[in-house]
Amino acid sequence: MLTLSLIGIGCGDPGQLTRAAVAAINAADFVLIPRKGSAKSDLADLRRTICADVLSNQATRIAEFDLPVRDAAEADYRKGVDDWHDAVAASWSRTIADRLGSEGKVALLIWGDPSLYDSSLRIARRLNPLPHIEVIPGITSIQALCAAHALPLNDIGEPFLVTTGRRLREGGWPSGVDTVVVMLDGGTAFQSLDPEGLQIWWGAYLGMPDQIVMSGVLAEVGPHIVAMRQEARERHGWIMDSYILKRRP
Amino acid sequence: MLTLSLIGIGCGDPGQLTRAAVAAINAADFVLIPRKGSAKSDLADLRRTICADVLSNQATRIAEFDLPVRDAAEADYRKGVDDWHDAVAASWSRTIADRLGSEGKVALLIWGDPSLYDSSLRIARRLNPLPHIEVIPGITSIQALCAAHALPLNDIGEPFLVTTGRRLREGGWPSGVDTVVVMLDGGTAFQSLDPEGLQIWWGAYLGMPDQIVMSGVLAEVGPHIVAMRQEARERHGWIMDSYILKRRP
Ligand SMILES: C[S@@+](CC[C@H](N)C(=O)[O-])C[C@H]1O[C@@H](n2cnc3c(N)ncnc32)[C@H](O)[C@@H]1O
Ligand SMILES: C[S@@+](CC[C@H](N)C(=O)[O-])C[C@H]1O[C@@H](n2cnc3c(N)ncnc32)[C@H](O)[C@@H]1O
Repeated sequence: MLTLSLIGIGCGDPGQLTRAAVAAINAADFVLIPRKGSAKSDLADLRRTICADVLSNQATRIAEFDLPVRDAAEADYRKGVDDWHDAVAASWSRTIADRLGSEGKVALLIWGDPSLYDSSLRIARRLNPLPHIEVIPGITSIQALCAAHALPLNDIGEPFLVTTGRRLREGGWPSGVDTVVVMLDGGTAFQSLDPEGLQIWWGAYLGMPDQIVMSGVLAEVGPHIVAMRQEARERHGWIMDSYILKRRP
Repeated sequence: MLTLSLIGIGCGDPGQLTRAAVAAINAADFVLIPRKGSAKSDLADLRRTICADVLSNQATRIAEFDLPVRDAAEADYRKGVDDWHDAVAASWSRTIADRLGSEGKVALLIWGDPSLYDSSLRIARRLNPLPHIEVIPGITSIQALCAAHALPLNDIGEPFLVTTGRRLREGGWPSGVDTVVVMLDGGTAFQSLDPEGLQIWWGAYLGMPDQIVMSGVLAEVGPHIVAMRQEARERHGWIMDSYILKRRP
């Protein structure tokens, strides 16, 4: 029997690791870590640091693997993602078969929580043979963002929507909600909105030593966020940011 | 200087505590625990157990306080909540002044994450004198629900809405989304929907020894959830449950 643990590790701050995550890392025969290219190598390093930090089981091994690259030339976006998931699944299956055979426990460290805008669960279901899949929740970037701002996410008894930068840019302010969380924004999609009556709570590199947060009336603080984001992105070579928008109901 | 730490402790499973939460509990001069009546006393007990389990600092004290009761007779819901927040803030202020004076660190253990459907942040802002407020994120019931079902919350690149049972009952299926998370449902609001094309992932007492999960096509599994919920609620005297609904797009 093969078990695959998808372990949420939080989004940058090793303090966000749960006791269950630490236990699951130490219960693994090996931990799979993607060997990522250039820009994101800070994050691969962070995974390695976390492992080194919490591993007390001498028997647990670390296995790096090359993450296949998604074919950006594929015109059909869904098909591109689909093919990529197949390729990643094949790569995991190979690494697992080589290292472990058909019995034991493999751990994958997942940024934030495995259920939130992450493909690992979908990829895991394509593994052959199909392992038992175990999910250990981790602190998400949404929670890190709220914590950094000491912000209650929802208004009392009110709903909120979580969406992507692309959706916000294409669809405008979503109907039926006054609170919107935006993730996976390659740019600053909030600029596409009429800022009238909107407030923003923004954060980049949340939980990391370089964490930046800004908040305020969108019309005023928006341009500062755009400039700050640009500057930070150039300095680091990459950026990960999220934000919450609230509309006065 | 007074600091108030709002510490997310996850929603039942002590393994969900983060390393930062454990550190913050041990950094406190005292931990405030509400002395709750009957039905919810299991949860107050759980807070006490968690404290006892992770406290290694001999100097940290536990202070219980009586949680004021909300005036259910107040016709204006918002005003009722407002008055209640004032009353709770006054009770915290008194307990803090009595025990600590104007300097030190007070911790409050919050179910799940302090930013998600929880009033503590709003109440904390009414404290007099106003302390420095620190938020430690915790695993939410949404994450525990997804983990229990090994379910990716969002579809690829798609948004999701988090709402309450009351909203779902009153407003029907929300526009613009195919994934809806329902919390704070005193009953089974999903029964008010046309089940055609809907799937449900339901969980009660998530993370606790009595955790129950059920999932499937809503038309088929819905009635079983209704019966199971009723039975579990009678047996325990209380229930906490959440669910995710997905619509075939
Ligand atoms: C592929 S998703 C992964 C989300 C992750 N599973 C989670 O639970 O937060 C990546 C997006 O998460 C957000 N994100 C992740 N880590 C972040 C961080 N440390 N600071 C700000 N945003 C972050 C950004 O919006 C980024 O585009
Ligand atoms: C007042 S809200 C608090 C939410 C909490 N702050 C969180 O992060 O999950 C209470 C609601 O959370 C959900 N909930 C909390 N704990 C739960 C559990 N252990 N199992 C299922 N649902 C839970 C239920 O929907 C319940 O009505």
